[in-house]
Amino acid sequence: MVQNKAFLYKAVPDGWPVPGKDLSVEDIGFDETAPPPPGGFTTKNLYATYDPSQRGRMRDPSIKSYTPAMTVGKPVVSVHVLGKVLKSDTPKIKEGAIVLIKGYYTEEYSAVPESALDRTAVIDPKPGVPLTAYLGALGMTGMTAYGSLHEIGQPKPGDVILVSAAAGAVGQTVGQIAVQEGLHVIGSVGDDRKLDFIINELGFTSGFNYKKENISDAVKRLAPDGIDIYYDNVGGELLDVALQNMKDFGRIVACGTISTYNNSGASGAYGVKNYSSVVRKRLRWQGFIVYDPNIIRWEKERDEKVARWIADGSFKSVDFFTHGIDHAVDGFLGMLKGENLGKSILKIADP
Amino acid sequence: MVQNKAFLYKAVPDGWPVPGKDLSVEDIGFDETAPPPPGGFTTKNLYATYDPSQRGRMRDPSIKSYTPAMTVGKPVVSVHVLGKVLKSDTPKIKEGAIVLIKGYYTEEYSAVPESALDRTAVIDPKPGVPLTAYLGALGMTGMTAYGSLHEIGQPKPGDVILVSAAAGAVGQTVGQIAVQEGLHVIGSVGDDRKLDFIINELGFTSGFNYKKENISDAVKRLAPDGIDIYYDNVGGELLDVALQNMKDFGRIVACGTISTYNNSGASGAYGVKNYSSVVRKRLRWQGFIVYDPNIIRWEKERDEKVARWIADGSFKSVDFFTHGIDHAVDGFLGMLKGENLGKSILKIADP
Repeated sequence: MVQNKAFLYKAVPDGWPVPGKDLSVEDIGFDETAPPPPGGFTTKNLYATYDPSQRGRMRDPSIKSYTPAMTVGKPVVSVHVLGKVLKSDTPKIKEGAIVLIKGYYTEEYSAVPESALDRTAVIDPKPGVPLTAYLGALGMTGMTAYGSLHEIGQPKPGDVILVSAAAGAVGQTVGQIAVQEGLHVIGSVGDDRKLDFIINELGFTSGFNYKKENISDAVKRLAPDGIDIYYDNVGGELLDVALQNMKDFGRIVACGTISTYNNSGASGAYGVKNYSSVVRKRLRWQGFIVYDPNIIRWEKERDEKVARWIADGSFKSVDFFTHGIDHAVDGFLGMLKGENLGKSILKIADP
Repeated sequence: MVQNKAFLYKAVPDGWPVPGKDLSVEDIGFDETAPPPPGGFTTKNLYATYDPSQRGRMRDPSIKSYTPAMTVGKPVVSVHVLGKVLKSDTPKIKEGAIVLIKGYYTEEYSAVPESALDRTAVIDPKPGVPLTAYLGALGMTGMTAYGSLHEIGQPKPGDVILVSAAAGAVGQTVGQIAVQEGLHVIGSVGDDRKLDFIINELGFTSGFNYKKENISDAVKRLAPDGIDIYYDNVGGELLDVALQNMKDFGRIVACGTISTYNNSGASGAYGVKNYSSVVRKRLRWQGFIVYDPNIIRWEKERDEKVARWIADGSFKSVDFFTHGIDHAVDGFLGMLKGENLGKSILKIADP
């Protein structure tokens, strides 16, 4: 038996998750002498991703949603865990391979059952593309951004796009794709460090700090002729301002409503008032999840283009690391607070 | 010079239009001895339609929208005026013809300039189809209903559709089309007379009176498995309840927000809280106007099907008349209050 620290889900949070009570890091042990599960494999894990969607899975299981509720008492489920294979009982996965497992536990060592094989991909990084890019721009984050921007946003060169949570994982991917495709890209962020980052590091056309400037003034200043595409990660007041500033036939890509995730119910939620713009301006406002067929059908094009852009240096796959599983709770809460620049990744061990 | 009473737009209403101050009926005179305008024609008008969109055009002209603001001091513009041609200076329109003019003044007699010819259609009613059907189910109201239901709503037999303002002109047309196409059709109305009407006269599956029953309870009772299509004419609380009860991949057809039309600004508007359903349930929420190419492309199919349904008695083209131009203001305000069962029509003269 060796130490196997895990990021544990201990109770359904009521609003903001409480460290120690709802979430903790504890040793759950790992028998390194045991064989792998029949048809499965074991891993030493290197990285796990943090995603806002994890908060949505920390709920009463009786509340229906598109992803199942997490199980109290088990490790937190990460969207992606990247690990090195220790032992394998399947010819599909070789010892020493680097594997990416979708929707798996956040822990130092895993015994992965055969049932998870169809959620497991062996990674063979392209030259010039870092391993962690497969957790972000070349993973589900990038698929979310690329698929929804093209399927719902229907970008054309010259279009004005407003991206909320622009320094976040999805936001910075959407923004950089839009820059590559010749759009006028405006980002909304919550601090000046992020503002500097999206403009000077990622090449956004412009941006604003919604905590420093009146949102309505900022949008009118930066998009005086209106917005063609609003990529919404947040909901709330910015969504309302965007609705008011959309051009005719504008598209709203409904990716997330992070501003509402830690409310306990609709009663505390912000009420959107400018929804009559949907009628008056003939907007199309549409939600999706990355696994929908109309989104995932963009995967091949994403794989090719984004890997090429990363390799030629024109697209940045930015990692924001939390170092060590001992800090897993802080890293998660920091991601929910929006402290991350780029993809939030828990680094569990060196590759 | 003969008497020519007109329904006049006298001032921009601040909230609810005030008779006498904002709207009135006055004689503006008509020279029956004058020749028709060069290239145009003159009419004795029989009918003019009332539409909620007219209220939106009674605004400060500096406020942009998809239809121009009406001109203070001129007659109110009706979506359709149906008249009999008195004199003509164009070979395209013969004396004695029945013509339908889009977007023209509400008055007893009109001198129609050549510039309005492309908005003028000569009507040749099909057997079994009343003249006034061309103002409703076979006019712009029906085009609005048929085009948007099919283009945005994407109805399939067995789908559950909720229609708001279900006894109104668009609502009852949408509902009857949906009944014809095998949907489960639920209507929301504001009084029991309308409830009886949509179920027993129009064949809706079910319905509720939102003034008598809690909206959320009613929707859950009548659509326990959720809604595939919400046809929204009203916005406000019902929209919020619909968002909460949509099925995955549901469609919201954003036709109107009549609940907001007499607010002076967004500050008084209802705030929609359940917009995060758009993300979670992958909804598509889309606005339109009837002249959009993707809506009007359904015209031929609408003309054929709806005329056939009316002629065979399975579809009711219901007129709600205001009799005589002297009552034009009351008829308009009654339509805004939702007093009409079916298409609101001002009858100006006998055919």
